[in-house]
Amino acid sequence: GRGAAAGAAGDSRRQRSLGMNMEADHMVVVMDERATELQIETVVARLVELGMDVHRSTGVTRTVLGVVGQTRPDPGLIEMFEGVHEVLRISEPYKLASRTFKPDNTIITVGDVRIGGDEVIVMAGPCSAETEQQVRTTAAAVRRAGAKIFRGGAFKPRSSPYSFQGLGEEGLRMLRDASTAEGMALVSEVMDISQIPLIEKYCDIFQVGARNMQNFTLLKELGHVRKPVLLKRGIAATIEEWLLSAEYVLSGGNTDVILCERGIRTFETATRNTFDISAIPVVKKLSHLPVLADPSHGAGRRDMVAPMARAAVAAGCDGLILEVHCDPDRALSDGAQSMFPAQFDRLMAELRIIAPAIGRSICLEPVARRGWGS
Amino acid sequence: GRGAAAGAAGDSRRQRSLGMNMEADHMVVVMDERATELQIETVVARLVELGMDVHRSTGVTRTVLGVVGQTRPDPGLIEMFEGVHEVLRISEPYKLASRTFKPDNTIITVGDVRIGGDEVIVMAGPCSAETEQQVRTTAAAVRRAGAKIFRGGAFKPRSSPYSFQGLGEEGLRMLRDASTAEGMALVSEVMDISQIPLIEKYCDIFQVGARNMQNFTLLKELGHVRKPVLLKRGIAATIEEWLLSAEYVLSGGNTDVILCERGIRTFETATRNTFDISAIPVVKKLSHLPVLADPSHGAGRRDMVAPMARAAVAAGCDGLILEVHCDPDRALSDGAQSMFPAQFDRLMAELRIIAPAIGRSICLEPVARRGWGS
Amino acid sequence: GRGAAAGAAGDSRRQRSLGMNMEADHMVVVMDERATELQIETVVARLVELGMDVHRSTGVTRTVLGVVGQTRPDPGLIEMFEGVHEVLRISEPYKLASRTFKPDNTIITVGDVRIGGDEVIVMAGPCSAETEQQVRTTAAAVRRAGAKIFRGGAFKPRSSPYSFQGLGEEGLRMLRDASTAEGMALVSEVMDISQIPLIEKYCDIFQVGARNMQNFTLLKELGHVRKPVLLKRGIAATIEEWLLSAEYVLSGGNTDVILCERGIRTFETATRNTFDISAIPVVKKLSHLPVLADPSHGAGRRDMVAPMARAAVAAGCDGLILEVHCDPDRALSDGAQSMFPAQFDRLMAELRIIAPAIGRSICLEPVARRGWGS
Amino acid sequence: GRGAAAGAAGDSRRQRSLGMNMEADHMVVVMDERATELQIETVVARLVELGMDVHRSTGVTRTVLGVVGQTRPDPGLIEMFEGVHEVLRISEPYKLASRTFKPDNTIITVGDVRIGGDEVIVMAGPCSAETEQQVRTTAAAVRRAGAKIFRGGAFKPRSSPYSFQGLGEEGLRMLRDASTAEGMALVSEVMDISQIPLIEKYCDIFQVGARNMQNFTLLKELGHVRKPVLLKRGIAATIEEWLLSAEYVLSGGNTDVILCERGIRTFETATRNTFDISAIPVVKKLSHLPVLADPSHGAGRRDMVAPMARAAVAAGCDGLILEVHCDPDRALSDGAQSMFPAQFDRLMAELRIIAPAIGRSICLEPVARRGWGS
Repeated sequence: GRGAAAGAAGDSRRQRSLGMNMEADHMVVVMDERATELQIETVVARLVELGMDVHRSTGVTRTVLGVVGQTRPDPGLIEMFEGVHEVLRISEPYKLASRTFKPDNTIITVGDVRIGGDEVIVMAGPCSAETEQQVRTTAAAVRRAGAKIFRGGAFKPRSSPYSFQGLGEEGLRMLRDASTAEGMALVSEVMDISQIPLIEKYCDIFQVGARNMQNFTLLKELGHVRKPVLLKRGIAATIEEWLLSAEYVLSGGNTDVILCERGIRTFETATRNTFDISAIPVVKKLSHLPVLADPSHGAGRRDMVAPMARAAVAAGCDGLILEVHCDPDRALSDGAQSMFPAQFDRLMAELRIIAPAIGRSICLEPVARRGWGS
Repeated sequence: GRGAAAGAAGDSRRQRSLGMNMEADHMVVVMDERATELQIETVVARLVELGMDVHRSTGVTRTVLGVVGQTRPDPGLIEMFEGVHEVLRISEPYKLASRTFKPDNTIITVGDVRIGGDEVIVMAGPCSAETEQQVRTTAAAVRRAGAKIFRGGAFKPRSSPYSFQGLGEEGLRMLRDASTAEGMALVSEVMDISQIPLIEKYCDIFQVGARNMQNFTLLKELGHVRKPVLLKRGIAATIEEWLLSAEYVLSGGNTDVILCERGIRTFETATRNTFDISAIPVVKKLSHLPVLADPSHGAGRRDMVAPMARAAVAAGCDGLILEVHCDPDRALSDGAQSMFPAQFDRLMAELRIIAPAIGRSICLEPVARRGWGS
Repeated sequence: GRGAAAGAAGDSRRQRSLGMNMEADHMVVVMDERATELQIETVVARLVELGMDVHRSTGVTRTVLGVVGQTRPDPGLIEMFEGVHEVLRISEPYKLASRTFKPDNTIITVGDVRIGGDEVIVMAGPCSAETEQQVRTTAAAVRRAGAKIFRGGAFKPRSSPYSFQGLGEEGLRMLRDASTAEGMALVSEVMDISQIPLIEKYCDIFQVGARNMQNFTLLKELGHVRKPVLLKRGIAATIEEWLLSAEYVLSGGNTDVILCERGIRTFETATRNTFDISAIPVVKKLSHLPVLADPSHGAGRRDMVAPMARAAVAAGCDGLILEVHCDPDRALSDGAQSMFPAQFDRLMAELRIIAPAIGRSICLEPVARRGWGS
Repeated sequence: GRGAAAGAAGDSRRQRSLGMNMEADHMVVVMDERATELQIETVVARLVELGMDVHRSTGVTRTVLGVVGQTRPDPGLIEMFEGVHEVLRISEPYKLASRTFKPDNTIITVGDVRIGGDEVIVMAGPCSAETEQQVRTTAAAVRRAGAKIFRGGAFKPRSSPYSFQGLGEEGLRMLRDASTAEGMALVSEVMDISQIPLIEKYCDIFQVGARNMQNFTLLKELGHVRKPVLLKRGIAATIEEWLLSAEYVLSGGNTDVILCERGIRTFETATRNTFDISAIPVVKKLSHLPVLADPSHGAGRRDMVAPMARAAVAAGCDGLILEVHCDPDRALSDGAQSMFPAQFDRLMAELRIIAPAIGRSICLEPVARRGWGS
């Protein structure tokens, strides 16, 4: 098919343009015990037609085919051929995000903050910008306690059309002013490609929310921006899919992707999500990218945020992103999971004890106040 | 807060503009057995401040507060108050999508096809448009077997950036030509607001894929188009969230939303998704909107599509959307789950037996070939 | 180790005693791209020490080991060796339950009822035996509507210790009397090995509930009884684990195992469980054993039982097991999901229309009343 | 019905025998907006017939019924009545396990070890007893590193009938000898009531595995033993169900129940289970019982055990149970997730840094070797 050829050509062009030595794809095709010679030959012929090399191994009970090549046939499709028992894919489908491609940790620098190094970086701030004063008060509080990056939303994805949807550009301006005043970088959520220029104007890091983790149009566009992307894991995304979404950004040319675990959906209803702390060491093993944790969304309740934050640091995350509000009981969104400033202070003190257990540090005392970028 | 007031005002303005008699929100706040009088009064005061009416009921062991009003406070936030044991929301958060709002079934008309009536409507076609001939051959085959609407993709959301991404406008043109030739309406997927004008030009129904079910920017925009929206359920979306996403479209003024179940993500790995057939009668009970089923994605394997299609019809769905390909073994996407035309023929024959068991019919013999819209 | 040898010896003894030609186990060990020669040789040496044959295939980027033998090493353990990227198991871990072992459908005969043949068999009755009259009235009603086997519980597994736990032997006697009077076989749940003699005395089929699907002590003991075992799927059991539990019974010498899907636990809360209808065709493909469906537990609500029952038959199940109660609003357990006799009548009429769509029949009119076994 | 009366009578007898002041059950019945007066009266009459007090509250749009009493009607059943929109249960279904019943932490004493106090207690040892030497070497190693209680299995629940099933009594004797020699208490798994006397003879704590969490026959019997019960959470058990299973033991008269989180089943396949660390603070809030964590099963891979163990302690668990093996690469079961003694040493050193962050301690240096019980 013309399309297939175009797709394959596109792939190798992209690989060349990135100077990649793209790993070949491996599959194992396991034939049924009762597969006939004709069935085996049909599968082999089809794989060769698709540009793959096939190594046939005939055992007492079964034939197994080792398949190598560059064209990545759909394993599910091969599995539909008669006489095929199972198709096992060996290679990971992502490349640029993997430790196989880049064994050393990626460290992302935002101003004088290094994400992915020895220091555990804490990002904190309100769920949404609501008022000038709320933003400023909260920024000052989190800065004092040791946060290095300010967070806050101006465009809010809400399950219900009747919920508060954010203040838009006015909110971004408030957040930027407070960040600059406190000498912190700013991270804020982008929901659609149309918002990219605005977010880029005001913020230092683009946040992609869980619901947009597979908004491929958005991810592709973020491959072309020059600022880091904080990519949250979707609530039903496997770790593999999460890394594939990172691959969309990386393959567009933006190498600064920060992953962020924020809880997955399970059968348990006692918590809003199940915060998958085990994803932290798993991803650190598979990928060189920094991994943050978002215990506010992971726990969904203020009184569960501190235990989950401590657990994430103990498990080896490279940083945290936390919701803190100067008056959470009156927050317009996510009030239930927003910490009081005093709770945040105490958590930071606990984290300073835990971090050394795994050879990490955490901001001991905030640097003197200064203008951001000065 | 200013924002909150603005939000509430926005809500009531929207309600007025729709001529809605918006249902009041109900909650029950259950206090701890050991809650003090001060704690109870603090909660009551806060709820009154939020504009709610509170009815206090003091029992032997506990106090329970009945709360009614228009401002929908966040139950999670109230749950954070000291002395509160649990907050139970009584009202559904969606309105326009509910049977409470509109008791009778919504029937959506596309040309001479009525979706949501007695006839079970079958939409079929290839996953992606690949070539002129593939599209035409497949369209003719599904039309002959009794499909009423043609489906096919030109923009494809793919987990991997290295997979075939669709032919774009060229694909849409091919699909339109084939639909017109066969006298069928056309449904195709829109992934981003930037694609709306193009899809609108060529298609009769906008499809929103599972990964975009919570792309609220897109949903809001589709509230303003004049063609029906087929809204697939996200793989981790609860039925309530799905209906809330429908509410985004409905509250924008577009009353023609078709829901479509396509499988949820569970622990089981023997199938790609777990096709949640029980969602069909549940949604039919909660909502007046038509409910389709997509057994191709629900099953993920060609040999499981027919059993799941039969089951969905037996469970009471208003229609099916199915992937059929003239040569599925060579399909550029979703080949494993695409049916051969002969399988589709046979399935249609089986469905014609099943539909009457629940008082439904299915296209007995295709109408004579004619131009679409003529 | 001594234990390992003992275990392996036990396995081959069991295989010989069953006259089995036990299939060899296959694995593929995929080495890291950077695996050293020493790492590869260490893995090979360990596998050979475990009694496996190893076929080494050295590619440009990776080495892959094909591993065959009888001793089934733990894939997870091999994966822990340095330089190992992934271990893929090729063989299914179950044998006697698989279609590879026995290609033809197993048909289980209970009196003159054949389970697994062309006829869809319906088992029905109350959740629990409560009173003489309730049992008799219900038995007569389900028999009249076409049920072939009577169901009812005397020992009830309940999540709460404060719920009704069943009438014990007195309940069994009531159920047996009603079954005999109506000329139906009887199926009832066994919860513990201590109850086996009692259930065996009164019933024709042992039911193992979802919570006991991995009560291996019970399963082993049921391998030695001479009556069929109806094995429900656990709410979190994969299809593979379910078939492995069947293997416990089969490998004990009891070849009459009937599988029964009853819903799995997922994130969705609108239904008590998610009834996994797709498991029906999947299991029919993997195994020769009959597969029933339990829409009462699968749906959890009376008004959802009929749609789910129709769907299960349309998907190809070999039978249904349904809760029917002469007065469900006063049932001591599972009243919400128990059908009224009139609902059951109507469902049977609908199923008689659906079954022929897939070449099956369903009891057209009940046979004349006669004593069971006469 | 007679049965119902008997059940209710049994409940109140049990309550009296325990000297309990059993909390009344609360429900809220929400009627449909369109519910008729007759429908409302029918529901009220039925609830009163069931012995409940009903408080009717008629609002502008809906009627809501507050229901209080001792007889706990099935909410699902009431929901089936015509005109009922939803039934919300207010009371937790468990009593003795709840903090409402007993606000202070339960501390369980085994020899001189206090579980549930300030010290984080570590239980460690091999998955299975295999040989005299393996047991002794491992016991000495874990004792040296600071474990307070020895763990090891003699009866093994295995998914496959072809896997190693444990050494039985011979294994128990080995484990007891090593425990006594090292001055540690012993915990081992009981799978069936028939094994209780044997486990009781050799062990200090009964372990109930995840697969048996709802083996109610076993739980009831363990309510009558005089040794503590370590109750693991089932892989698909909600926290509420887990506490209800604890209630089975507690309501039998055994007040020494230790809960243990060990991972739940989710869609993620990168780890064997998803270790639900958030369950720790949730359960600590709902219940007074000590909560342990089992990171070996939670992670499923040796290299993930230490991060998960650190995280569990940071989240506030009262102790850990860990698999350690003197030669894990040759373990007969769970080798992949068993730590090397040196890994365990290092983990204990890390935990000693983390525990003080939350005001806990961990065994600083093992006490001098002495006979157990002396």
